[in-house]
Amino acid sequence: MIHGKEVFEGVEWRIRVADGSSEVLVQETGLARKAWLRIKGLISGLAFKVWMFLKRAWDMGVNDPKKLIHCIKVGLALAIVSLFYFMRPLYDGVGGNAMWAVMTVVVVFEQTVGATLYKCLNRVCGTCLAGFLAVGLHWVANRSGESFEPFVVGASVFLLASVATFSRLIPSAKSLFDYGAMIFILTFSFVAVSGYRVDKLFDKAHQRISTIIIGTSLCIIVIMIVCPIWSGQELHSLIVRNMDKLADSLDEPILPIMVSGCVTQYFNHRGVCTNSNEEADKKLQGYKCVLSSKASEESMANFARWEPSHGRFNFRHPWKQYLKIGASMRSCAYRIEALSSCINSEKQAAEFIKKHLSISCLKVSSSSSSTIRELAETVKTMKKSSTIDLLVGEMNTAVQELQNDLKSLSYLLNPSTIPENKKMKTSMEATATVPLMEIIPVVTLASILIEIAVRIEALVGAVKELAKLADFATHDDKSKQTKTKDKFVPDEKQSEGTMKAFQRV
Amino acid sequence: MIHGKEVFEGVEWRIRVADGSSEVLVQETGLARKAWLRIKGLISGLAFKVWMFLKRAWDMGVNDPKKLIHCIKVGLALAIVSLFYFMRPLYDGVGGNAMWAVMTVVVVFEQTVGATLYKCLNRVCGTCLAGFLAVGLHWVANRSGESFEPFVVGASVFLLASVATFSRLIPSAKSLFDYGAMIFILTFSFVAVSGYRVDKLFDKAHQRISTIIIGTSLCIIVIMIVCPIWSGQELHSLIVRNMDKLADSLDEPILPIMVSGCVTQYFNHRGVCTNSNEEADKKLQGYKCVLSSKASEESMANFARWEPSHGRFNFRHPWKQYLKIGASMRSCAYRIEALSSCINSEKQAAEFIKKHLSISCLKVSSSSSSTIRELAETVKTMKKSSTIDLLVGEMNTAVQELQNDLKSLSYLLNPSTIPENKKMKTSMEATATVPLMEIIPVVTLASILIEIAVRIEALVGAVKELAKLADFATHDDKSKQTKTKDKFVPDEKQSEGTMKAFQRV
Repeated sequence: MIHGKEVFEGVEWRIRVADGSSEVLVQETGLARKAWLRIKGLISGLAFKVWMFLKRAWDMGVNDPKKLIHCIKVGLALAIVSLFYFMRPLYDGVGGNAMWAVMTVVVVFEQTVGATLYKCLNRVCGTCLAGFLAVGLHWVANRSGESFEPFVVGASVFLLASVATFSRLIPSAKSLFDYGAMIFILTFSFVAVSGYRVDKLFDKAHQRISTIIIGTSLCIIVIMIVCPIWSGQELHSLIVRNMDKLADSLDEPILPIMVSGCVTQYFNHRGVCTNSNEEADKKLQGYKCVLSSKASEESMANFARWEPSHGRFNFRHPWKQYLKIGASMRSCAYRIEALSSCINSEKQAAEFIKKHLSISCLKVSSSSSSTIRELAETVKTMKKSSTIDLLVGEMNTAVQELQNDLKSLSYLLNPSTIPENKKMKTSMEATATVPLMEIIPVVTLASILIEIAVRIEALVGAVKELAKLADFATHDDKSKQTKTKDKFVPDEKQSEGTMKAFQRV
Repeated sequence: MIHGKEVFEGVEWRIRVADGSSEVLVQETGLARKAWLRIKGLISGLAFKVWMFLKRAWDMGVNDPKKLIHCIKVGLALAIVSLFYFMRPLYDGVGGNAMWAVMTVVVVFEQTVGATLYKCLNRVCGTCLAGFLAVGLHWVANRSGESFEPFVVGASVFLLASVATFSRLIPSAKSLFDYGAMIFILTFSFVAVSGYRVDKLFDKAHQRISTIIIGTSLCIIVIMIVCPIWSGQELHSLIVRNMDKLADSLDEPILPIMVSGCVTQYFNHRGVCTNSNEEADKKLQGYKCVLSSKASEESMANFARWEPSHGRFNFRHPWKQYLKIGASMRSCAYRIEALSSCINSEKQAAEFIKKHLSISCLKVSSSSSSTIRELAETVKTMKKSSTIDLLVGEMNTAVQELQNDLKSLSYLLNPSTIPENKKMKTSMEATATVPLMEIIPVVTLASILIEIAVRIEALVGAVKELAKLADFATHDDKSKQTKTKDKFVPDEKQSEGTMKAFQRV
């Protein structure tokens, strides 16, 4: 116990023991303190994480009240279905099987009406079909004698479960009755197997089906009455929102004149304008939402077809056409991605080449942007546009001008080729020849812009097809003017502004 | 009844009635026949549809035996769990609650081990947590007196269901315990509400938990023993497959020399080579799979982290890095999409300009393709590549050459600018000046190719990061040579072939 002549630096506590030797008091408190500090750190770290999580959740709730409403609806539906337990007549009415109603509500209640209807119908159909089949099987198994019964039942469960699972893996079947197939397997196994034990099979099946119907009806009533969220409406808004984002991305990188007051990002002093730069960047990135919205569009379209007529949408609204519009928009967005990498490229073109092409490039981008905005307006108001052909024509003229400007670039490269009648015009710039490398970035940008215009024409076609299929109203100019005032920047005004901006450039 | 002098064309059947008049036999059979034909048409149409559906299902099963195996596994697990009904000791052991075990198997059994484990753990945890909370609530409610009990229970069900539903909507929580939250709501409502009726609450809870544990254990055993399909392995293969597709798309449009024997699709006679054109087209479109695989990558990575160590993957394999690689690949794929629209564009460049750039363009595309192939090989074998830096260097050299060729295009546009020392070289082509419009398509293609090379460098960085995180083995040349023989075209050989092809061009 006695420490030898170890070298010990710092303060040491010694205690004199009865036998005359002295003993070191080891600093146990140091260890305990360390442990305490560590635990404290862990707890405070955890508390911080929980706090951040709660803060994020709160922000989400505030930003998206629809989600909060959904939560309250779930609670409400469950509280109502609990009445089956609390009220004696209701409880006895379903023979003590109220459990299935609760279960149905928990499992079936989804955010949108379409998804809930899909699950409700699937659950009811799957349960009924499986119930009948299982009762039939029970009858057959009963006839086959007691020793064979387990084998017949077991084999049929194996077989039907495999087949139903397989049907869930086929894409076309999956989108229609994936959930139904699962419920089919569930109910079939339940009834087929428990038929072996329970004698009052018919009573059981009847009670189960009635409780499920009670649960599903309750869900349908709650979801359709309390602030209903329709998949179709959501899909419709998503498409409109994405179109606006696409238009923003197209218009902003090239022409933020009207928006931020700085004079063009690419064609003039890129990065100089600091005013609302972050917001502008966010708008620039808008097209990325379009790139990644395929999955949500598909699931919404899938649920939307289960929805009854609501708002401006009929039962057989052409939801599939929205998917085509979405695909067309994505095809634009891919080009915008290429465009943005072109703009952010390190190699920049010579300033006066940029100047040479800027007006026509700006014109193409702004006219394609206003075409997309007009499409968004068409889809939003569900009225055929009277100006869309005009805008497409304008866009094509702008493309043609851009191509002419590209052609005239030749003269910059090789002044000797300038025809006599054009010499006056280009005399300013053509004092020196330009190396091709300084032209390439702008030329690439221009040809991607032209490509984007081509894709937008395809998008216009898709929207026109939708207008035909969904029987959009013919556009009434009066109603439009009053409508656009309150929310949308009118396209006419915008293109006027664009023209003025051009004149200023 | 007697028909007058109606003009009746065609054959008419008359029957002489007893009173001497004659009566027309109306062709009732015509109507019946029409109806019959229509029904027959309907039935045969339906039969045809069913037949096509079955055929598609059969094809799917044959092409993807994994799905068939999954179905058989589900059937097997259900047949085993049915034993709880057929065997008296087992049935009594769980107090007649075997139903919950069956239900667990149906609901929890998924295609991959990760997804099944995720659901199993979520189900067990959710059930236990909700069970404890509900029993606690029951105790509190009991103390509050009989008249208050329903209100206390109802309010707490409403509150907890809302909160748990809200947690399901938060993305970070959703990926971890979406299913668990649903089970929590389900169990809590069950136990809290039925606590109001059932006296043997503890027995019930105990039985339910034990049956759920039986069901989940059975699922885990079956899914991990019978031909297990691991999410991690699937993600790994998907990434490798997508890389190969990317490489195919890049290499084929520009350089199908080695593949189909035709001499380059774009730079020479596009569309002339008919040999295996369809297959080549399919390969060209391969990059589209990369564009749309984000959702499946994310769900696989999400499930993979639940999986224990398997094959070459540890428990904490950096699955998130695969998502980064996927994003990097998509960023390449966007550019390939732009490239393909460039290639399919109507405006084609002048032939001799094409010729001028073809060699360097082909070189860039083939070297970037072999870089991607090497990356695929690296990920596939999980061994650090010894040649990747070399390949990237080669790619960059090719890019540099392409840029030089672009520079020298200036001389074609403006022969007077050719420096004296270079006049000999280009004298062949530079007999006439070329309008810029004929150059633009090739120049755009070239700059997109250069952009692709930049993205591939980012991809190389992401794969290197993965190699570091997952501690890939250092590459052993011997083992590689034997490995590549059986499945992969060795990169060395390929680039040799490329070089030869160049010499031929």
